[in-house]
Amino acid sequence: MPYVNIKITREGATAEQKAALIKGVTDLLVTVLDKNPATTVVVIDEVALEDWGVGGLPVDEYRRKAREKS
Amino acid sequence: MPYVNIKITREGATAEQKAALIKGVTDLLVTVLDKNPATTVVVIDEVALEDWGVGGLPVDEYRRKAREKS
Amino acid sequence: MPYVNIKITREGATAEQKAALIKGVTDLLVTVLDKNPATTVVVIDEVALEDWGVGGLPVDEYRRKAREKS
Amino acid sequence: MPYVNIKITREGATAEQKAALIKGVTDLLVTVLDKNPATTVVVIDEVALEDWGVGGLPVDEYRRKAREKS
Amino acid sequence: MPYVNIKITREGATAEQKAALIKGVTDLLVTVLDKNPATTVVVIDEVALEDWGVGGLPVDEYRRKAREKS
Amino acid sequence: MPYVNIKITREGATAEQKAALIKGVTDLLVTVLDKNPATTVVVIDEVALEDWGVGGLPVDEYRRKAREKS
Repeated sequence: MPYVNIKITREGATAEQKAALIKGVTDLLVTVLDKNPATTVVVIDEVALEDWGVGGLPVDEYRRKAREKS
Repeated sequence: MPYVNIKITREGATAEQKAALIKGVTDLLVTVLDKNPATTVVVIDEVALEDWGVGGLPVDEYRRKAREKS
Repeated sequence: MPYVNIKITREGATAEQKAALIKGVTDLLVTVLDKNPATTVVVIDEVALEDWGVGGLPVDEYRRKAREKS
Repeated sequence: MPYVNIKITREGATAEQKAALIKGVTDLLVTVLDKNPATTVVVIDEVALEDWGVGGLPVDEYRRKAREKS
Repeated sequence: MPYVNIKITREGATAEQKAALIKGVTDLLVTVLDKNPATTVVVIDEVALEDWGVGGLPVDEYRRKAREKS
Repeated sequence: MPYVNIKITREGATAEQKAALIKGVTDLLVTVLDKNPATTVVVIDEVALEDWGVGGLPVDEYRRKAREKS
């Protein structure tokens, strides 16, 4: 009965892609740890770009700087 | 000073129902563990149906299949 | 199919008290929101005192200062 | 490679303020623990007032009562 | 730059199995959403049986009752 | 009344360093958002190296590979 929380930036993931994440991670827990899929819960959180930080910067600014460098 | 996070699918919970959850779980921690309600924090997350998976499926599809079986 | 996470400081909660929290919060979700208890998951985290802060202080120091004041 | 989650009530925090939180907490982890900022992730969640409880009450009602007392 | 948290009951998962979870879920996010694996973070929490509840019961008691029924 | 969760790998952070994190992030929320420190809660989780993944690898293996490359 695992619980999985997947946080991604909100950038247009479709319901089909989310269903693929739910199925994929549930299958993974069955394959690797023989967990019962019936009680495996997955919660996906989409996070606005301004609410996600990496390298000390909001993610959109982080990406802009990374592009400038390259 | 407990912290409680309640995640539910977004299906029309009212402000009154949320207040009842906040009061109920705070009272529970006072009764069972003698915690101080003044510093007990409760955060409720409502999660869209397409972002909640169980049994390897998004919850709306999961319910549809469950109904078909019965 | 709610998911509830309860974080408390580690101060000797017994297995019986934890079972009472699990039962109490599950019953609450049934009563208030008519949730299915069979798929309600509760996870309790006990957190060491030095890992819990409030008022800008680790909780044991916070309590010491609160006692000194009163 | 720390992961930090900051939950605040939704009351108009600006993108600039969120960027200041992201920068500030990343710098803090560098200063205190010599963590690598490049792999430090920060996620901010803004929570509606009716979804945040303290003292057994939704936060807006909690504040109203606190004002009445003072 | 996704963040994934996997919570499982503590029942002897090996370092190899955990590595397989980390690799599997990272690959999944690359395949489904074209996420950058370099900034994908996975945190696994093992939770003691007495701290995990389902169906209103601690998980060991839940399993005992399920076996009695079958 | 913010809630902050800081997850770091378990590598010997001292109680003093944790207290500095608690004070630093609480001060940050006061400075940036004028939050009340008295109801700001901070929870630190130390995560074993085998339970933390990045780049599709457990963090110790990830570091070994990074050193080999450089």
